[in-house]
Amino acid sequence: MENIVSPQSLQQFLHREIPLSQAMQIAAVDVTEESVQLSAPLAPNLNPHATVFGGSASALALLAAWSLLHVRLRSAFPSVCIVIQRQSVSYNRPIHGSFAARAALAQPGEWPRFLRLLTRRGKARITVASTLDYAGEEVGHFSGDFVAFHWH
Amino acid sequence: MENIVSPQSLQQFLHREIPLSQAMQIAAVDVTEESVQLSAPLAPNLNPHATVFGGSASALALLAAWSLLHVRLRSAFPSVCIVIQRQSVSYNRPIHGSFAARAALAQPGEWPRFLRLLTRRGKARITVASTLDYAGEEVGHFSGDFVAFHWH
Repeated sequence: MENIVSPQSLQQFLHREIPLSQAMQIAAVDVTEESVQLSAPLAPNLNPHATVFGGSASALALLAAWSLLHVRLRSAFPSVCIVIQRQSVSYNRPIHGSFAARAALAQPGEWPRFLRLLTRRGKARITVASTLDYAGEEVGHFSGDFVAFHWH
Repeated sequence: MENIVSPQSLQQFLHREIPLSQAMQIAAVDVTEESVQLSAPLAPNLNPHATVFGGSASALALLAAWSLLHVRLRSAFPSVCIVIQRQSVSYNRPIHGSFAARAALAQPGEWPRFLRLLTRRGKARITVASTLDYAGEEVGHFSGDFVAFHWH
């Protein structure tokens, strides 16, 4: 599937619209309709134990997941509102350096139903999962339920 | 129970050790052995819909929970390491302004067992819950499982 938004364009959008993404020095690495990968360096995301603060790790995972929906919906629903309702995050081990989050739909087969509900009722829910990666290994997992609202 | 750390002192510690807490302009409002309340303003925590970014809300809730354990453990275990293992967060409604998180032990009765394990085995787990508050209402809920490590 073609890249519908360039990583540079997504990164600029995030830095402009979500100040915390700039404070975290988030970079957009890879953007397709199937997945979005974001990364961040250690320094602005430190905790007192010289590893990555859990709040930074979960925020990166959430932003990757949110961005995937943003990227998929922006052409058809330019004024759509995408908000998180629930999230669960597991942290498997400490992160000692730059880290990344890659998001994909938890159940890609649900997408047509999601679009249909969003079009007909102006509101629909979908789950996005992100993996947290550090030094080539999966170090955490995020699952988030999002609601998209669309005003006709 | 007496305040064992002043809010000012906790706030300075967080800003110094966790750069994201400074970027979020987190303030420590109330600190006791039973609960820790932190707050943050809207501006540095905005999302594209002009409400609070979910990643900021969950980071505030996590920091309040982490701080409660930090405050409770710092005298007896000055070199303890406190890390999050798992968290779940629900967001009930959008937050349009300054917001707060208040953390307390999910099961206060577990504290003696937690301290005993931490002392004997150098490692123990405990769950801390935070409520997210905005304009006098509970707008979200956080539950986090933390592990404390102690080197003898």
